[in-house]
Amino acid sequence: MTQTIPNQDNPDQTPFSDIRRLIASVPGADRDAVAMVRERDAMLTKPAGALGRLENLVEWLAAWQGKGQPSLDRPLVCVFAASHGVTKRGVSAFPAEVNRQMLDNFAAGGGAINQLCAAYGLGFKVFDLAIDLPTGDICEGPAFTEKECVATMAFGMEAIAAGTDCLGLGEMGIGNTTIAAAIYAALYGGGAAHWVGRGTGVDAAGIERKVAAVEAALAFHAGHLDDPLHVLSRLGGREIAAMAGAILAARMQRIPVVIDGYVATSAAAILHAIDPSMLDHCLAGHVSAEGAHAEVLERLGLVPLLALGMRLGEASGAALAIGLLKGALACHRDMATFAQAGVSGRSES
Amino acid sequence: MTQTIPNQDNPDQTPFSDIRRLIASVPGADRDAVAMVRERDAMLTKPAGALGRLENLVEWLAAWQGKGQPSLDRPLVCVFAASHGVTKRGVSAFPAEVNRQMLDNFAAGGGAINQLCAAYGLGFKVFDLAIDLPTGDICEGPAFTEKECVATMAFGMEAIAAGTDCLGLGEMGIGNTTIAAAIYAALYGGGAAHWVGRGTGVDAAGIERKVAAVEAALAFHAGHLDDPLHVLSRLGGREIAAMAGAILAARMQRIPVVIDGYVATSAAAILHAIDPSMLDHCLAGHVSAEGAHAEVLERLGLVPLLALGMRLGEASGAALAIGLLKGALACHRDMATFAQAGVSGRSES
Repeated sequence: MTQTIPNQDNPDQTPFSDIRRLIASVPGADRDAVAMVRERDAMLTKPAGALGRLENLVEWLAAWQGKGQPSLDRPLVCVFAASHGVTKRGVSAFPAEVNRQMLDNFAAGGGAINQLCAAYGLGFKVFDLAIDLPTGDICEGPAFTEKECVATMAFGMEAIAAGTDCLGLGEMGIGNTTIAAAIYAALYGGGAAHWVGRGTGVDAAGIERKVAAVEAALAFHAGHLDDPLHVLSRLGGREIAAMAGAILAARMQRIPVVIDGYVATSAAAILHAIDPSMLDHCLAGHVSAEGAHAEVLERLGLVPLLALGMRLGEASGAALAIGLLKGALACHRDMATFAQAGVSGRSES
Repeated sequence: MTQTIPNQDNPDQTPFSDIRRLIASVPGADRDAVAMVRERDAMLTKPAGALGRLENLVEWLAAWQGKGQPSLDRPLVCVFAASHGVTKRGVSAFPAEVNRQMLDNFAAGGGAINQLCAAYGLGFKVFDLAIDLPTGDICEGPAFTEKECVATMAFGMEAIAAGTDCLGLGEMGIGNTTIAAAIYAALYGGGAAHWVGRGTGVDAAGIERKVAAVEAALAFHAGHLDDPLHVLSRLGGREIAAMAGAILAARMQRIPVVIDGYVATSAAAILHAIDPSMLDHCLAGHVSAEGAHAEVLERLGLVPLLALGMRLGEASGAALAIGLLKGALACHRDMATFAQAGVSGRSES
């Protein structure tokens, strides 16, 4: 892992230099591994293509693990939790103290994500990103300094430190759908109202406060949002920086990533804005009911695996998607071939 | 189970009389059980509605199991296998001997469905419906007699005999996408070509042969297809009659049903044509890549859980869907409540 942790103490570079260097050096897909998967798939006792997207998912695992026989032996779901100064503007239906309470709930095994990880046999890890220390209110200043932002990205890179062959990424942080909306508005334009949704369930007045907060943030930081990494440090949050770091580290280490919903996707969007190929190892677990998530995914070229109207976060959509990946891989790995089963192939048409 | 098996020896009735009587007597949803699910759901540590369709799935399980605390302790996937006389017209990319070979493959654990059931911990049972005795060529006569059809429906009712709390239904039978297309054309009109798809992967000439077979069948049976049960006995097949019986028996015994793809849905369509409320206990596991499956589901009022471009049959889409149901139920059953976790509820907006 050492090579992927940015050096923050080199005076010859800006805080983001190491991140940019890493992004410029990420590996590509392993085409040989994909060819091996396709060769085996053609021998399995089913019509060619009959498992549809399940077949593509196995190819994707192979391409990014760099293995002709991909694995899901150690799937890991990581939830990054952080607090946001913008919550003082009444942008959430829940009070900010819920952050600490939900961390305790995860630790006690009581969250939705605990049950999903147990149901599908997924490892689960929560990262407390200074939950009692909110980032700055983005309407009045940057969320955090560039140096803090890079340090948080480096912390996020630790998601893969214990080893995994498929990483699910999600978050928890009261107020962070407002943060994600601000990031999308900065990256894509279109105005605050276009990107703001109901989040945990705010009413019309809450939506107005969210829109006002995003507009105020865009106005305050106007002229400083051309660089996606500046968007991240000025409008972002710790969980978003950490997820961006985790996506980048996973790419370096050949670990496929399954992204959760509206907020998790904002971390992916930052990387995509720097280099669109940065998400080639990422799968969108689902399309959320929140705001304009479907539009964001389309901009990123990601086709969501599930569409269940969920808007919880906590990597819940990513965990369900990894559950499907397990089924896809089981078919590819364990089905009999035509020769093994003595099944006749296609007749001449 | 005895009350759900039709009496075929009573001379005072037509073969389908008992089936019609059963359909007229099916139970409705248990609204009290749904209310209990909603009451608990409102206490769980998540924003109201944040798990989207997962919440509706648990309500659906409760409604049809008639239990305020629904279970998935004994999920069972049943695959019904049968042979079709119409295969002599070259309507499949695979020879008819594959039927027997695939039964052996399932028994040896080599099929896709074996792997999916293993991955999600689902029971699995294959019903051999006289696989070496094809039904009649529907272009030249009825698939089978009304009495044989009812006997096959009764055999399908045995799917639930060993006990299950959620039944996944699928099929295997070379040539049966042609059979399903004929059923849909008879029920809904619109012409053969509208309903015929590539099945296991026929080329353009194969599609032409499928369309010609469906047209010939519709012409031969013209004037005798007003009754959906006559559509079943004249244009159907043993696996389709058995699945219709299984859906009906499951409803009588309060067992929710997950339907697989294009062919399995044709069994549901027969029942729906008799009484649209007959599918209220059924979930469409996925929308298939085959033919006009999406349109059929819309006509049946079923919203598919998955859309993965699959077209295998074998209950593969139903098994993946039950995998998702397991996650949905785990959340509902095992999440902490706000009170248990000491998590604050909504603040005033």
